[in-house]
Amino acid sequence: MISMLRKSLVTMGLQMHSNLLARFKSNQEAKTALIILAPGAEEMEFTISADVLRRGNINVTVAGLDGCEPVKCSRSVVIVPDTSLEEALTKENYDVVVLPGGLAGNKALMNSTAVGDLLRCQDSKAGLIAAICAAPTALAKHGIGKGKSITSHPDLKSQLKDNYCYIDDEAVVQDGNLITSRGPGTSFDFALKIIEQLVGVETAIKVAKPMLWPYKC
Amino acid sequence: MISMLRKSLVTMGLQMHSNLLARFKSNQEAKTALIILAPGAEEMEFTISADVLRRGNINVTVAGLDGCEPVKCSRSVVIVPDTSLEEALTKENYDVVVLPGGLAGNKALMNSTAVGDLLRCQDSKAGLIAAICAAPTALAKHGIGKGKSITSHPDLKSQLKDNYCYIDDEAVVQDGNLITSRGPGTSFDFALKIIEQLVGVETAIKVAKPMLWPYKC
Repeated sequence: MISMLRKSLVTMGLQMHSNLLARFKSNQEAKTALIILAPGAEEMEFTISADVLRRGNINVTVAGLDGCEPVKCSRSVVIVPDTSLEEALTKENYDVVVLPGGLAGNKALMNSTAVGDLLRCQDSKAGLIAAICAAPTALAKHGIGKGKSITSHPDLKSQLKDNYCYIDDEAVVQDGNLITSRGPGTSFDFALKIIEQLVGVETAIKVAKPMLWPYKC
Repeated sequence: MISMLRKSLVTMGLQMHSNLLARFKSNQEAKTALIILAPGAEEMEFTISADVLRRGNINVTVAGLDGCEPVKCSRSVVIVPDTSLEEALTKENYDVVVLPGGLAGNKALMNSTAVGDLLRCQDSKAGLIAAICAAPTALAKHGIGKGKSITSHPDLKSQLKDNYCYIDDEAVVQDGNLITSRGPGTSFDFALKIIEQLVGVETAIKVAKPMLWPYKC
């Protein structure tokens, strides 16, 4: 009897140990972000998103919409993606899909069937989708989150206000799995909001401080 | 006599017209900026500088410190320079030389003889020099502007305070031909200050507004 009790206690202990290890591992596993880089994307909105998320220990994949060749952005900064969107989509599910703005870049996002399919798939799993500046109109074009609260660059408001609850006076708006923001000057808060959601507010505070960004969570 | 007077008046008129045209042309001619991109540069500080200056109609050349191959920045964003620093220096004088930060990028700027020669040449003509984050220590290393008021990322203060009048509580500090700033979060104000100096405050205001940046001139 004592021997059986001892065996049960050992088994229970091992089980608890293994559960704790699994939970620790899952908490430790880096979150993942897919940022889609289209020709004509706004390079500040792209770069701030990629850099700040990486500072928050999020595993960022920069995927070129049209392949893995260098991409000329809206003010002629040329950026080399990590991979092509096609390749990136064969690999894993992403905790967040991020769409930078820029008028030409956003037009390309709107016209892409692959982006439409990806956004609808991410949305159906309630996965996080984040769009800034002009890019919320790509969400509208692909039928994502209609009726939700969003914001965008003020110049695009007229294209969004009929199908969304449009917020004028906030730098970043979150409604469920949608995070939207307004322009280059709100990009730091946009990226920090993604960190807040995926990693936690403590990490967002830690990331903001050495960047000298006056983050208010 | 009347014929000579008429001739003189016509000549004077033509001369004034030509002077006015020359002045108009010189005012209209775009100002030029050289941004040096070193491996390990802080990509937000680089991208915000390049993008904002171009929005201000400044003719920006992105020069790779080590050549014209793609440059991997501090958070793994890969940027293709317009040209190499060597090539850029054969072409023209620049109205401003801009040094982005990033610890590894700045170390490379400190160790470069070409950067030292360029900065001393620019300084001797009282040409504008702008450095952000860690990069003010490259100014110190190359003997630029000692005794002047400057700022930097707070982590670098100890390396600067003995040789400069170190300012802790301003996002951007200008003293004569030196403009210095603190980090990614102060990059918009840094770039707008350069526009203010080279193009004018009205242009800086016009550039800030659509970026949704709360610029205070």
